[in-house]
Amino acid sequence: MAEILKGKVVADKIKEEITRDVEDLKKNGINPTLGIVRLGKNPDDIFYERSIIKNCNSVGISTSIVEEDESITTEKLVEIIERLNKDDFISGILVFRPLPKHIDEEVIRNVISPKKDIDCMNPINLEKIFEGDMTGFAPCTPKAAVEILLHNNVSLEGKNVVIINRSMVVGKPLAMMLLEENATVTICHSRTKDLHKVTSNADIVMTALGRPKYFDKKYFKEESIVIDIGISEDENGKISGDIDFEDVKDYVKMITPVPNGVGSITTSILLKQTVNACK
Amino acid sequence: MAEILKGKVVADKIKEEITRDVEDLKKNGINPTLGIVRLGKNPDDIFYERSIIKNCNSVGISTSIVEEDESITTEKLVEIIERLNKDDFISGILVFRPLPKHIDEEVIRNVISPKKDIDCMNPINLEKIFEGDMTGFAPCTPKAAVEILLHNNVSLEGKNVVIINRSMVVGKPLAMMLLEENATVTICHSRTKDLHKVTSNADIVMTALGRPKYFDKKYFKEESIVIDIGISEDENGKISGDIDFEDVKDYVKMITPVPNGVGSITTSILLKQTVNACK
Repeated sequence: MAEILKGKVVADKIKEEITRDVEDLKKNGINPTLGIVRLGKNPDDIFYERSIIKNCNSVGISTSIVEEDESITTEKLVEIIERLNKDDFISGILVFRPLPKHIDEEVIRNVISPKKDIDCMNPINLEKIFEGDMTGFAPCTPKAAVEILLHNNVSLEGKNVVIINRSMVVGKPLAMMLLEENATVTICHSRTKDLHKVTSNADIVMTALGRPKYFDKKYFKEESIVIDIGISEDENGKISGDIDFEDVKDYVKMITPVPNGVGSITTSILLKQTVNACK
Repeated sequence: MAEILKGKVVADKIKEEITRDVEDLKKNGINPTLGIVRLGKNPDDIFYERSIIKNCNSVGISTSIVEEDESITTEKLVEIIERLNKDDFISGILVFRPLPKHIDEEVIRNVISPKKDIDCMNPINLEKIFEGDMTGFAPCTPKAAVEILLHNNVSLEGKNVVIINRSMVVGKPLAMMLLEENATVTICHSRTKDLHKVTSNADIVMTALGRPKYFDKKYFKEESIVIDIGISEDENGKISGDIDFEDVKDYVKMITPVPNGVGSITTSILLKQTVNACK
């Protein structure tokens, strides 16, 4: 029976730290505030926004929501972000993505102040991650995936870690974070041949493929540690990870569930980075 | 008997392209010029500088050398680079590294114009590499290592490529270039456990460890393609790669020698990027 690594324990611990930090900041007259920019009324965005506000409230971080119509121009959105950049009351800025197609995301990424860029959109912050400088802001999902391992005392030094994803929001920054922990890192993707051979030789497999229940236990060994970063809907419309959890959970050493795994930690990372932006 | 992949053939082909491009540019009144900034009189630097000038001459690129004492301040060096940034006659800028210890390299990297940054020092250009955007400037050594494979019609799609190096000048950008070619990429380093197992499972091994003759044929299989990016001196003071060439060359499928392998291509990449900066 695998050890099930739940996200909530890690998230709670991070939130405890945040609560203490926020108290200290408030004693010094600083009120950490997260500025959220949402375009349109996409139900997923609104759901995510509510969850963030609730989480912010629970740790004492204020929120300031800028809602605009999704027909907004790039120029107008730049103005809004520049206003938030200059606003001393705003500690960190989160712009909901994906942006509408007519918006020039490259412009938006560059305009957000690197010092308030808690979601790590700005190339300057991403380049720091590439260099292995982890003192700044990191993309929240890969950071959450690393945190769940470290929190559970999984040493990464010299471990063979296989990542299945090569995007800028998960796979590539995750690889850089793992290299900083001295793991040997393999990056796989849709063109990888014999994925089975690659995963079954790994100590740790971290997957963000986005195909529900894709990996059954044949892909792993008994000592495998499996971190599931995939989120998709299965054939019944139920949220599922990349791993066939029921098949794998009695076989491997450790596994994260979906939901209630890595995804439960990302918002805490976002809040932690909002507080760090304040410091 | 392995196929020996020599660098000169590739370098000559790139230089042919450059010569044609330079002729076209000159017809339009543009005279590509490489600005070199050298601090002090380190013999290696002077040797490298002479080699670059000779290569530039051979393809019709002009050079402009700025030599300063190695005691120069960061502020003064910034001024020099800013002058080169603004100088319309300078197409590309190469600042010899390593810089003296008292110079703030972070400042220098950021001050060099991304449009003239042919050695890919500026974080903006490095971040493009991280994203897989290969339209700009690339670090020359990893680019040369990829070119030698492509020139020899080695398909990288779906291949398991192992890189032994995790630096910002070789391993990390190389990994990003290989991902763009749809290879499955493993990044190894000093903390990697059982390197033998990792390399002997790979289709292609690319090493920049800097330990002379470290890898004998036990690290490979008969189908291995071995790209040696390491340069160091062996016990007799002779230039050597990471590979025990004499031991390995009759065993694997393809191998690059050191010297006369990857290193013979890097200057051509630098010149190619100088011309691209002009365009």
